[in-house]
Amino acid sequence: MKTTLTKIKKEKPDFGALGFCKYFSDHMLVMDYKNGAWQEPEIMPYGAFELNPATSSLHYGQGIFEGLKAYKNNGKVTLFRPRDNFVRMNKSANRLCIPEIDVDLVLNSLIELIKLEEDWIPEGGGRSLYIRPFIFATDNVLGVASASNYRFAIILSPVGSYYAGGLKPTRILVEEHFVRASIGGTGEAKCIGNYAASLFAGNLAKAKGYDQVMWLDSSEHLFVEEVGSMNMFFVEKGKVKTPSLVGSILPGITRDSAIKLLTAKGIKVEETRISIKKVAKGINSGALTEAFGTGTAAVISPVGTLGYQGKDLVIGNNEMGEISSWLYDELTGIQCGIKEDKFGWVMHLN
Amino acid sequence: MKTTLTKIKKEKPDFGALGFCKYFSDHMLVMDYKNGAWQEPEIMPYGAFELNPATSSLHYGQGIFEGLKAYKNNGKVTLFRPRDNFVRMNKSANRLCIPEIDVDLVLNSLIELIKLEEDWIPEGGGRSLYIRPFIFATDNVLGVASASNYRFAIILSPVGSYYAGGLKPTRILVEEHFVRASIGGTGEAKCIGNYAASLFAGNLAKAKGYDQVMWLDSSEHLFVEEVGSMNMFFVEKGKVKTPSLVGSILPGITRDSAIKLLTAKGIKVEETRISIKKVAKGINSGALTEAFGTGTAAVISPVGTLGYQGKDLVIGNNEMGEISSWLYDELTGIQCGIKEDKFGWVMHLN
Repeated sequence: MKTTLTKIKKEKPDFGALGFCKYFSDHMLVMDYKNGAWQEPEIMPYGAFELNPATSSLHYGQGIFEGLKAYKNNGKVTLFRPRDNFVRMNKSANRLCIPEIDVDLVLNSLIELIKLEEDWIPEGGGRSLYIRPFIFATDNVLGVASASNYRFAIILSPVGSYYAGGLKPTRILVEEHFVRASIGGTGEAKCIGNYAASLFAGNLAKAKGYDQVMWLDSSEHLFVEEVGSMNMFFVEKGKVKTPSLVGSILPGITRDSAIKLLTAKGIKVEETRISIKKVAKGINSGALTEAFGTGTAAVISPVGTLGYQGKDLVIGNNEMGEISSWLYDELTGIQCGIKEDKFGWVMHLN
Repeated sequence: MKTTLTKIKKEKPDFGALGFCKYFSDHMLVMDYKNGAWQEPEIMPYGAFELNPATSSLHYGQGIFEGLKAYKNNGKVTLFRPRDNFVRMNKSANRLCIPEIDVDLVLNSLIELIKLEEDWIPEGGGRSLYIRPFIFATDNVLGVASASNYRFAIILSPVGSYYAGGLKPTRILVEEHFVRASIGGTGEAKCIGNYAASLFAGNLAKAKGYDQVMWLDSSEHLFVEEVGSMNMFFVEKGKVKTPSLVGSILPGITRDSAIKLLTAKGIKVEETRISIKKVAKGINSGALTEAFGTGTAAVISPVGTLGYQGKDLVIGNNEMGEISSWLYDELTGIQCGIKEDKFGWVMHLN
């Protein structure tokens, strides 16, 4: 792979106060699509893209992305299910009319980039190197059409623990008007427009003292879809439920990992449509004892309070439940190479 | 306004073979938002934006745009309802959590830009100068949140007649699975993600020999919403109907102009929910005699064939109808300053 090294390495930020994706490493990977084919990937110094103001993704939003992490533990570097991210990226690409990438080629290119940037992976304390692969359309004409030119890039950012202030259950507001996605829309693709569309309701929830919204289906405003940008799980009478992938829900890799880990432990996970009314009933009766979101950034994010139709329903005494805690420990343990990896999810880089 | 003129003017393209938005003029307008306020707008040579690879709109799609045109007739330059575009831009901005712009300031800035680029307005033959105002988020962090930094820009492109090959009725496929927008979503905002989301179904329709899709509502897949990226009108027994603005439909400025012109002419326009089943019935019985889309690019685009549930329904003998033709002549006549402007829609620049 063509590699151009930076002449001046950046000063590393304080790995004890990273926050989320504020700093970027010295190098990035870039691969352009033109003349009907993806060109050779290149590693180059992290730096600005020179984009024509007519760059089509700025006008028509034809863009997708992925998110995954590299972990370092006692100097050992691991990736968690990286291939699955690029397989999913191709599914998003199809939905957004973007040409598919060669999964093995980009995975190998990522590994080379990570090895070059190994010093940028913060060790321990829930820290990691966040990996952001993305593709955006780069045509310079304004007709509404799928583009003929694209850029694939990977940028890297050292991130702190999502729970720098301790793992506190979140306050979630059930959103009954605004919707994230509908069946026949782009909800199951990781496309950029989905995230912009979610901001307004998220900000409304924050203004009311909640951390995020719980999205319901667009037709009946009755069935739980996602929470913020995470998949959602509930524990009721020892059974775990998560919304089935009906077409408007992102097929989360953490979601899939949680289902497989729980099932292997002998805990049944039902993928089904989940009525918010039944959720509220379950919380009120005490039968529903845990609720949590799953995603790459937070891994497991327990929900302590659900704001629904003007009332705050408290789940599991506003404490992180047994299953949530177990999943969090298990998943983060596997990810950084401490716990046994029964599913072959972890890729060791050194 | 701060203005930096280009040192080398571009060679103008052949105004007889322009196509749509392939060429851009010598200058552009740029206005950045930072530190909680829109900064002074600037006119500068058209040129690349230097964007950090973490630029948030490339990752989360927080962007909106507008489209309008400048016309030249016998050397006289006109704009059509330009203020309405910037008022609508602020509505889109609100929905996408983007700070509002000062409508008068940007309108005056646009006028200055157009005057500077007057030579770029092609004259006659349905040609015009397409004006593209747009705003995109420019934060360089990857947290999913409404950004703190934005860029507003206006670029200009001379465009040929939409009907270079003659005004031919289009072939439209009714889309019963994929949806453009749902109530509670972003369909009534002119945000970039809506357009990316429409590409897949549009491409499917093209592969089946149609020009574009007709979108139905996301809940019942029964009510007509839009056609391609245009608003939709039907003429049945001399009465005109168009989908009401229920929340998932873009409030088109051409749509509004068509309603006002028809009403002033004594033709009743009903804004209502329109069942695709009744549309098909009306075409089959011969009662529905015209169907057309309205939008800035095409102005009026007659629909000659509607592909619905495996059958091609031919509307009005596949010819442009009386009302469509009258509206097209009236609107294009008013826009370029030939026909009387009873509504005060036209702004004369010289």
